[in-house]
Amino acid sequence: MDIEAFRKAGYKAIDDICDYYYSLQEKSVVSNVKPGYLAELVPSEPPVKGEPFQNIANDYQKLIVPGLTHWQHPSFFAYYPTACTFEGMLGDLYASSASNPGFNWYASPACTELEVIVMDWAAKLLGLGPAFWNSSGVGGGCIQSTASDAALIAIVAARSLYQRTHPDVELDKLVIYTTTQTHSLGLKAGLILGLQVRALEVTSGDKFGLRGETLRKALEADTKAGKHPFILVATVGTTSSGAVDNLAEIKTVAVKYPSLWIHVDAAWAGVAMVCPEYREQCYLQDINDIAHSFCTNFHKWGLVNFDASTLWVRDRKYLTEALDVTPPFLRTAEGDAGRVIDYRNWHLALGRKFRSLKFWFVIRSYGIEGFQKYIRQSISLNESFAEKISQSKHLEHVTPPSFALSVFRLVPKLDSQRVFTLDELNGLNKQYYARISSRKDIALTQTVLNGVSCIRLAVGAAQTTKEHIEKASALLNEEAEEALKVWLETSSSGQSPN
Amino acid sequence: MDIEAFRKAGYKAIDDICDYYYSLQEKSVVSNVKPGYLAELVPSEPPVKGEPFQNIANDYQKLIVPGLTHWQHPSFFAYYPTACTFEGMLGDLYASSASNPGFNWYASPACTELEVIVMDWAAKLLGLGPAFWNSSGVGGGCIQSTASDAALIAIVAARSLYQRTHPDVELDKLVIYTTTQTHSLGLKAGLILGLQVRALEVTSGDKFGLRGETLRKALEADTKAGKHPFILVATVGTTSSGAVDNLAEIKTVAVKYPSLWIHVDAAWAGVAMVCPEYREQCYLQDINDIAHSFCTNFHKWGLVNFDASTLWVRDRKYLTEALDVTPPFLRTAEGDAGRVIDYRNWHLALGRKFRSLKFWFVIRSYGIEGFQKYIRQSISLNESFAEKISQSKHLEHVTPPSFALSVFRLVPKLDSQRVFTLDELNGLNKQYYARISSRKDIALTQTVLNGVSCIRLAVGAAQTTKEHIEKASALLNEEAEEALKVWLETSSSGQSPN
Repeated sequence: MDIEAFRKAGYKAIDDICDYYYSLQEKSVVSNVKPGYLAELVPSEPPVKGEPFQNIANDYQKLIVPGLTHWQHPSFFAYYPTACTFEGMLGDLYASSASNPGFNWYASPACTELEVIVMDWAAKLLGLGPAFWNSSGVGGGCIQSTASDAALIAIVAARSLYQRTHPDVELDKLVIYTTTQTHSLGLKAGLILGLQVRALEVTSGDKFGLRGETLRKALEADTKAGKHPFILVATVGTTSSGAVDNLAEIKTVAVKYPSLWIHVDAAWAGVAMVCPEYREQCYLQDINDIAHSFCTNFHKWGLVNFDASTLWVRDRKYLTEALDVTPPFLRTAEGDAGRVIDYRNWHLALGRKFRSLKFWFVIRSYGIEGFQKYIRQSISLNESFAEKISQSKHLEHVTPPSFALSVFRLVPKLDSQRVFTLDELNGLNKQYYARISSRKDIALTQTVLNGVSCIRLAVGAAQTTKEHIEKASALLNEEAEEALKVWLETSSSGQSPN
Repeated sequence: MDIEAFRKAGYKAIDDICDYYYSLQEKSVVSNVKPGYLAELVPSEPPVKGEPFQNIANDYQKLIVPGLTHWQHPSFFAYYPTACTFEGMLGDLYASSASNPGFNWYASPACTELEVIVMDWAAKLLGLGPAFWNSSGVGGGCIQSTASDAALIAIVAARSLYQRTHPDVELDKLVIYTTTQTHSLGLKAGLILGLQVRALEVTSGDKFGLRGETLRKALEADTKAGKHPFILVATVGTTSSGAVDNLAEIKTVAVKYPSLWIHVDAAWAGVAMVCPEYREQCYLQDINDIAHSFCTNFHKWGLVNFDASTLWVRDRKYLTEALDVTPPFLRTAEGDAGRVIDYRNWHLALGRKFRSLKFWFVIRSYGIEGFQKYIRQSISLNESFAEKISQSKHLEHVTPPSFALSVFRLVPKLDSQRVFTLDELNGLNKQYYARISSRKDIALTQTVLNGVSCIRLAVGAAQTTKEHIEKASALLNEEAEEALKVWLETSSSGQSPN
């Protein structure tokens, strides 16, 4: 494809994307395809000769789009939102055209320098203190792919620091602390690194957030047993229920255990800190006081297209001392002189994408006020939904709404005032969720909170309005009635309700 | 930005990219900016109010483009090429617009299914055998971010397998084998995982490729010493010199050590296997016979924009048994039934980009023949350069040219027939490289091969022609003369040549 053919295909792609967003509301949220659909439509061998690009672009519309789950659909409430802004797309497009793996300053000064600047912008946007800014010269921030990568890096840095200060401790004595509500990134890091993970208990009474006392007891018991907990992965806004670990209490414990690294994973909820009114709920002050590292994913609720996970550390040496490998072919005059950041030593790989560009585009386009408006709108829509749940006959919250997330379940209110066991209710809710998940006009995900089967609704798509929330709650109430009816019939006929 | 504003800004972006490629040859290859240039031009605070997008797009041209090193410039010969095709950009653009983190089948069927298909296409393109195809149902392939990620995953999978079959072996007895020429990804994986790395020696006589005998001796000695080498990271096309480890000999050793995982990192050179005539040189047959895992980066020499690293494994269970974590909120009917691949269990993170789209676009646009033409052209250009080196008065190869890479140094041929020590030559070559790296009209990188300072020239940018190669060799000869002149003057005046 020459430059003029690209111009033509590029315009067409832009038009296709406009069409996609104009028609988004009319599409099914969830794809209708069956497993294996694409293998029946695409040859199993690569073509010998090149094909005209227009055929390929047409096939994208014909074969691929019908197999997409539309995360930007206004009735997509599953998992967490995935950011998609036009400004983010354009940032990606320009970055893709430069195709620059700026792994060190020399490899592309602009890539490194823009990242240094926008990470400070992002820190200031969220209220992170000067200790985390690149301009501090000590701490600093860096763009990662995902919160999993960020947590893995934090754990590696924490282990490296711990081993330097405790050289005699064997690897199999080290323990990563999470809670039972921590994202799978905690367990996965444990698998990857071959380290023990201990998931601390949380209760529904504490809204599934970790208490200081639980941490203190665990530290005492494990230390006594000869184990070495070296990092706590605390969460602000868990995946299952938006729970927030009590970082104020954790702080009072952590001061007595200065070797315990505190990583705060605020993958989803962290961006809410752009609004001053949510900073206390996110324990911003405590994060600024004690966190060794902090992560939030702008590609979730932060308007910057995937991948855009941000990781800040209180001391950049934590990363470079754990990760720096400099073979001769990567040495540069600027790096040797220490005049520049070589971001390759701040992450797992060597090559890296020019992701700061989309941050720059999005933050400048929206401004602080634009971010605040978007966050407040998502939370307000979730409040509308929460109100509908409160008014519902059979649906109730399992835990209070958190930011833009509601977790609820079906608890029948029958005239007989019959009381149900947890197993019965779980069986009913699984059937209820099966009904919802078989629908193509809405997407929600299920979870289990301390043994209670429940359903999550997360708000965040740009096109979602109050009407979509009302439609969703009407649909969820109808399906609840239907699920209950079928369940009671099955139940009363003597069959197992499971 | 609404949809129509996006259309306007999108057309403008496409036009900007066309202008960039039309004007590429007139630009400096390497940026002229000094460390810290951007902080002087960009505010240190994020804006409170959003700005018109056109201002931002203009600033990209004004502030960012001058700070880029142009990896697509026809005179960029540093590191390795980074793929950038218009088809790849368009694939990225469509993928960005769908913003779909298809981490499991339900999260977007098309993302998973297209990846399953294009990874088989890519395997067939390279000649990888059926054992590595997804259609085998046993082995399979998956797109990763970088060869570092791929190697890290292979090492984690190998460690996990080794520990399952050798449950009593302690972590600190495990050893990762690399060679002294392996990319820094080997050492970095060791740092990340807290495992020992042993770099096996290679010689210039063996063109820096690992011999079977070296491996055998190391295995015998380490096993005797109670150590457990569990993986060899072998390389097809090292970064420094394009060296290829002798996989035929490694095979004869490996059959006696069935617990030794063989990971083949062909990050750069692997794509050469699209041409049947390079398959033997890449030891394709031996890879098919013994490799547990194989990686090549299509984002280097393979026409697919970053990130596009491909990893194949002989048994997908190696990955899933090492990496599978399935919390309730990630459970799906299709996954539970085992009817689909959940790629989240094949890589480090959870979320993943829809990268298969750009593979599909590029492979269909170029076809097998297009790939072959591109690879052959790069190699042919390097052969032209190699010829120029052979004809040069003072330049000579340090090791034979490998694929599209030449490694050379300045070895003065003086009338006095003076012979120089290695230290003297290294000093001279460092000065020579300093001259080259201070130029903005060409980019090359330096390296050290078993103590010998040398310079690398890697071909691969799409616009590079024989004229650029001739210009490069003329420039390198001139700089060699100048460097030599200055060095001899300094040298003869009694100052240290270093």
